[in-house]
Amino acid sequence: MKVTAVAHTNIALIKYWGKRDEKLILPSNSSLSITLDKFFTETTFEWSNSQEKDLLVLNGEEREDKKIQRYLDVLRHEFDITLRAVIHSENHVPTAAGLASSASAFAALATAASASLGRKDSKIALSRLARLGSGSASRSIFGGLAIWQKGEKADGSDSYAVPFESELTDQLAVVVAIVSDRPKKISSRSGMKQTVLTSPFFAEWTRTAELDLEAIKKAFANSDFTQVGEILEHNAMKMHATTLSANPPFTYFSQESLLVMEAVRELRADGIEAYFTMDAGPNVKIVCLRQDEEKVASRIDQLVGRVLICHAGEGAKVIQNENGN
Amino acid sequence: MKVTAVAHTNIALIKYWGKRDEKLILPSNSSLSITLDKFFTETTFEWSNSQEKDLLVLNGEEREDKKIQRYLDVLRHEFDITLRAVIHSENHVPTAAGLASSASAFAALATAASASLGRKDSKIALSRLARLGSGSASRSIFGGLAIWQKGEKADGSDSYAVPFESELTDQLAVVVAIVSDRPKKISSRSGMKQTVLTSPFFAEWTRTAELDLEAIKKAFANSDFTQVGEILEHNAMKMHATTLSANPPFTYFSQESLLVMEAVRELRADGIEAYFTMDAGPNVKIVCLRQDEEKVASRIDQLVGRVLICHAGEGAKVIQNENGN
Repeated sequence: MKVTAVAHTNIALIKYWGKRDEKLILPSNSSLSITLDKFFTETTFEWSNSQEKDLLVLNGEEREDKKIQRYLDVLRHEFDITLRAVIHSENHVPTAAGLASSASAFAALATAASASLGRKDSKIALSRLARLGSGSASRSIFGGLAIWQKGEKADGSDSYAVPFESELTDQLAVVVAIVSDRPKKISSRSGMKQTVLTSPFFAEWTRTAELDLEAIKKAFANSDFTQVGEILEHNAMKMHATTLSANPPFTYFSQESLLVMEAVRELRADGIEAYFTMDAGPNVKIVCLRQDEEKVASRIDQLVGRVLICHAGEGAKVIQNENGN
Repeated sequence: MKVTAVAHTNIALIKYWGKRDEKLILPSNSSLSITLDKFFTETTFEWSNSQEKDLLVLNGEEREDKKIQRYLDVLRHEFDITLRAVIHSENHVPTAAGLASSASAFAALATAASASLGRKDSKIALSRLARLGSGSASRSIFGGLAIWQKGEKADGSDSYAVPFESELTDQLAVVVAIVSDRPKKISSRSGMKQTVLTSPFFAEWTRTAELDLEAIKKAFANSDFTQVGEILEHNAMKMHATTLSANPPFTYFSQESLLVMEAVRELRADGIEAYFTMDAGPNVKIVCLRQDEEKVASRIDQLVGRVLICHAGEGAKVIQNENGN
């Protein structure tokens, strides 16, 4: 069956940074994210027995992709099949610039691949499945806020995302300052690995990220945006502190990232509540309340020239479902 | 007696970052520095009984300075005197831009103030005395490489610098990229304090800085510049990681700092051994071998427009000594 699924990216407010198992993609700490409405991947998927090999067409171009190739093998193993995949995928996310294009890509892929077999996997099962492609993809199965519970088991069966409800969710805006859409120099995967192996601060990062998660859950429960903002900014900078303390040290900050973060501090000094977060790339995402989103966007737009206002987006879902022939 | 003393700044290769005692300026970890030949303070000092209050003339201008005022009270207490001070000081260091102008200032002040009473304080005693003005000043008493031993005692009597000999010292060059001579936004004193109080990584910073010191001593003993460079760069970035992990997070990086650090990485990729370090300000100091200093300086000069090549400098000393009248 040919199936089309859509999944949106998400931005972690409590970061996933570091794996305890490279192969099963099991994280060292739990994380919390907001799925965004503006960036998404649309993937049409068909399992085929008439193909000799998997076919991947990404944004209209046939591609060889080791990460996806490996993932298709994982899916075949999970589904216990030997079929080949035919994939057409459109990525509406600037690739590899810290905007987690792999989150939407693997969430869409897992959703479509499962549906294409006529399976009725639960959201939790899909989250677990998406995780095997890219850790952050586990969260994009859900809309709004999602918590990826790190789990304890060695087989990863308890490591998946769950939705997290808050009355704040629909008041939030994420202003994405796109300072670069060049692919990043150090992938999140290898940066993460280098950090785990060499940063003396990594254990403490892991320990305190769990505390941050508990604190931000409480802040969301109290609809206390100031608390939410302070926690997410501190958590993000701690993550970046671990790259700076790696050996050799490295950073995902670009000159423009610094400029934007400074502007956010100035916004706050002017009484506009806004907080920044960054992932494994130079883009800065500014979390504010919807009521302030225009002010924030216009200030940042003067600096970087490309700004997008996002709100909470939907979880991954099948949007089209035709019988193959 | 009117006495003129000179002291040079120093750049820490293993950073002093964090106090265990704010009042006595006792550090959480030991540090290692190189005293530089290009930046210095020249201070003419006289203890007087005909003045009503202390007089400070800094770079030709009469000034009120709380830090120096407080320090003069400390000196009077240490020397058990009630005299007033007449100070004329010329600072040949860009003030408050991470170039440790306070290191040369307080080392010159301690040296001159002691000599002005005709005291014969040992270098260790002067180092201890300079420390009471500014921690890093303890190291500027000595030329070349100096280690500020953190000490263990509560009264600070074992917290002073000692010289550290290495055959590498005279082969080293420090290229200072002056990206800003504006006063910094967060002083090293308050940045340090905020970090000690709020960074979850601070304890680990302290612990690993001591390991870095042992490792760099070994590398210097082996005249292994590559090791020296890798350790100093990692140590510096770990220090900056602690500011990023403070709550709220902050950074001394400016846009230009990032540019210069990236250029140093490119120099290395081109086979030129150079390593960067930064203090509580945006300037970047690049440590290389003298044989490469011109290449390094010319590459960095293209980026920032103001570069100074320094070598190991002399320790603090009295250069003029006239009887008062």
